[in-house]
Amino acid sequence: MLTLHDMLLSGNCHKVRLLLRWLGIPFRRVEVDVFGGGSHTPEFLALNPAGKVPVLVWDDGRTLPESGAILLHFAEGTDWLPADAWARAQVYRWMFWEQYSHETSVAVIRSVVLYDRPFGADRKAQLLKDGTAALALMDRHLQGREWLVGNRRSLADLALYPYTAVAEDGGLDLAGFPHLRAWLDRFAGLPGFVPMDHDAGWEGTA
Amino acid sequence: MLTLHDMLLSGNCHKVRLLLRWLGIPFRRVEVDVFGGGSHTPEFLALNPAGKVPVLVWDDGRTLPESGAILLHFAEGTDWLPADAWARAQVYRWMFWEQYSHETSVAVIRSVVLYDRPFGADRKAQLLKDGTAALALMDRHLQGREWLVGNRRSLADLALYPYTAVAEDGGLDLAGFPHLRAWLDRFAGLPGFVPMDHDAGWEGTA
Repeated sequence: MLTLHDMLLSGNCHKVRLLLRWLGIPFRRVEVDVFGGGSHTPEFLALNPAGKVPVLVWDDGRTLPESGAILLHFAEGTDWLPADAWARAQVYRWMFWEQYSHETSVAVIRSVVLYDRPFGADRKAQLLKDGTAALALMDRHLQGREWLVGNRRSLADLALYPYTAVAEDGGLDLAGFPHLRAWLDRFAGLPGFVPMDHDAGWEGTA
Repeated sequence: MLTLHDMLLSGNCHKVRLLLRWLGIPFRRVEVDVFGGGSHTPEFLALNPAGKVPVLVWDDGRTLPESGAILLHFAEGTDWLPADAWARAQVYRWMFWEQYSHETSVAVIRSVVLYDRPFGADRKAQLLKDGTAALALMDRHLQGREWLVGNRRSLADLALYPYTAVAEDGGLDLAGFPHLRAWLDRFAGLPGFVPMDHDAGWEGTA
């Protein structure tokens, strides 16, 4: 069985848990105490030298870090990753945009607030500005669309959902983004959806 | 013909130019004055609402931003992207790691220095520390290996090369990373390689 080195409140980990659950792939969950140094022990660094969750470990010892890599690996051949080359390219586009231009503000400002990390006021203001711009970009794109790419949910939606859904934890305001809020509701309404902070209902799903 | 909205000194743009050149796909280059506001004009934002280069534009008006998406789109079916599922997963892993954990320090510190951007001393110190850690991770991985994934160059190497090659512009020191330096030389020795700052030899390659 797969072992997911996980952190319940990490959006990157939530993506992986949701996909494995939806694909019916059983896994066991190991909660890593990231803010207590648990992702920088010698044992953990042997699994992922970058010192980050999620990391997926196979019974034969193979390891795969990076949520985007895990999603693409397991979604291949399923309807979470379109077969059409142009639709795939759009999914890639949203996944890379999420990691570089959305998570770097929307997720970071949440972590600053949630875990009381030391950041200057200027940096916080910049993160709020960048995060708001990222959410506004999504809201405009979702006007008249149900999903980010094409007519069905894909890895693009799965990659963007978790940190967007908890953006208000970081002080971002979704009130002015009606299309984004409708999309969040649509995604959370998918059959089998489990919210980020539910610590049951994940393991051994098949 | 494809049009690449480009910036000569951007590593993300260098990746795209190199792949299109190596695949023999002709394109025309439009240099965008990013630091003069050229990526935030209404015309540019219509091509990429994220206001970033590179963006590739087709003659029929289709657009594709995000260097990672462009690389994966064009490399499909070529030997830059392995057909084997596990090797592909490793390529994805390095590509996402580059965007979230390498570019965010190695490229950002260079841009701070090159373009004299306003960053506090604390932030600069953190970027240097994170950038050094990213380079050290690559150096350890490359010990005993010629390429990042498997036995041949792939998108993993192409995604990591450009900003690593110019890391010293940002004040990072590669002297202690012999495996990384050997890999840089190996990549730059590939037939047809063109350095980032060469503004000729790109367009209309076929």
